[in-house]
Amino acid sequence: MQLFYSPDIAPMFTLDAEESRHAVRVMRLREGDAIHVSDGHGQIVQCRIITAEEKGCTVEVMGERVADVLPVNMCLAVAPTKNPSRMEWLVEKAVEVGVNQIYLLQGDHSERVFMKTDRLQRIAVSAMKQSLRGILPDILPVMSVREFITEVAVPDNSQLFIAHCEADKPRIPLAMALQPGRNTTILIGPEGDFSEEEIALALQHGYQPVSLGPSRLRTETAALYAVTAFNLINDRS
Amino acid sequence: MQLFYSPDIAPMFTLDAEESRHAVRVMRLREGDAIHVSDGHGQIVQCRIITAEEKGCTVEVMGERVADVLPVNMCLAVAPTKNPSRMEWLVEKAVEVGVNQIYLLQGDHSERVFMKTDRLQRIAVSAMKQSLRGILPDILPVMSVREFITEVAVPDNSQLFIAHCEADKPRIPLAMALQPGRNTTILIGPEGDFSEEEIALALQHGYQPVSLGPSRLRTETAALYAVTAFNLINDRS
Repeated sequence: MQLFYSPDIAPMFTLDAEESRHAVRVMRLREGDAIHVSDGHGQIVQCRIITAEEKGCTVEVMGERVADVLPVNMCLAVAPTKNPSRMEWLVEKAVEVGVNQIYLLQGDHSERVFMKTDRLQRIAVSAMKQSLRGILPDILPVMSVREFITEVAVPDNSQLFIAHCEADKPRIPLAMALQPGRNTTILIGPEGDFSEEEIALALQHGYQPVSLGPSRLRTETAALYAVTAFNLINDRS
Repeated sequence: MQLFYSPDIAPMFTLDAEESRHAVRVMRLREGDAIHVSDGHGQIVQCRIITAEEKGCTVEVMGERVADVLPVNMCLAVAPTKNPSRMEWLVEKAVEVGVNQIYLLQGDHSERVFMKTDRLQRIAVSAMKQSLRGILPDILPVMSVREFITEVAVPDNSQLFIAHCEADKPRIPLAMALQPGRNTTILIGPEGDFSEEEIALALQHGYQPVSLGPSRLRTETAALYAVTAFNLINDRS
């Protein structure tokens, strides 16, 4: 099975230039060949190529199925690392394992505030196709931790977690705090951790403080640990 | 806390050239400064620098404590990816999250059989220091899947898993199969999966077939997913 991506699927539609080039030049697909296309929102359809052109393949839908998507939502909000390649790695891995939204945070202790979301979005598309997932996460531009906590609407009935590193403040292991079958939002701080004010604000807004094991994890490792925990606890496939 | 590594800790001992350069040139530590040193086997001691020399710092043990290590053993046996940087990434992340041995496997469907373990070992030392862990995994040279299954002694009372991709053969989700408090060994196959003969041999030797969620995970993602599952289920810190 070879998966392609198109945000807009109609009975007959055109793949964009990047996907078309992939199909025609890289995969050497031709008219009449069958492919699968994901809309990034959980729907994967079987299609047939009508015209195989590098600038835009026209394809026709042949069947339909909804992908195996979890009935619950995973929202990751993470402060970007100084090293952009570590964030790119995180996006690839989080999409493979399963995530619905990735918010980029600027914390009081963040060193880096600029991050190209278009490059991260391309990495996410590639990871979605490679892992045969139907879900392409939204990757949102950088916003402050305060703005995320106070202004972003999370799905109904979400369990909210903040993973901070202050070992002298009460925290419970994420593995014990996570409940299966619930929408989940988790905040992962910058290399310098969340500030005391950010932690206090999160607690006021119903976030539970959690720890991620005995190691000091890098930001991107902590974020993937949290995404993996959510998917593990909800995996009954 | 700044952690250094020395496999041999005595009441007074010398850090090797790499660790000494790190202490003196990078961290600019001087005589009398306090450091922590891990022996890679769970012991972390507090030390004081007696002579600060780039070619070999002499240090003296000032106190002793055993690191927070799990009472159970995690053994990962994984077929290296074609792209060596993906294996290097895996070693870094697996050490951060927690692993005791990493065996490199050559499967019937493996494309790559050569892998420099000394470079991986250096990455493991760096990740151990960065994450303040007391455990440095052994990284073993490449051996065949058959040899691993039939000849390598795993710890007593181990639960054994093989994560293969044949969806039409019975498998249970790793999250449901894993029991906390038990030594664990998991086999992760190459990009072309294990062969039927390798899967059959593993089952004969008591391995349980497991799945790692609904996605098609890359080899290195699958391996980290398994290591994370083990650490999550055993985290009561």
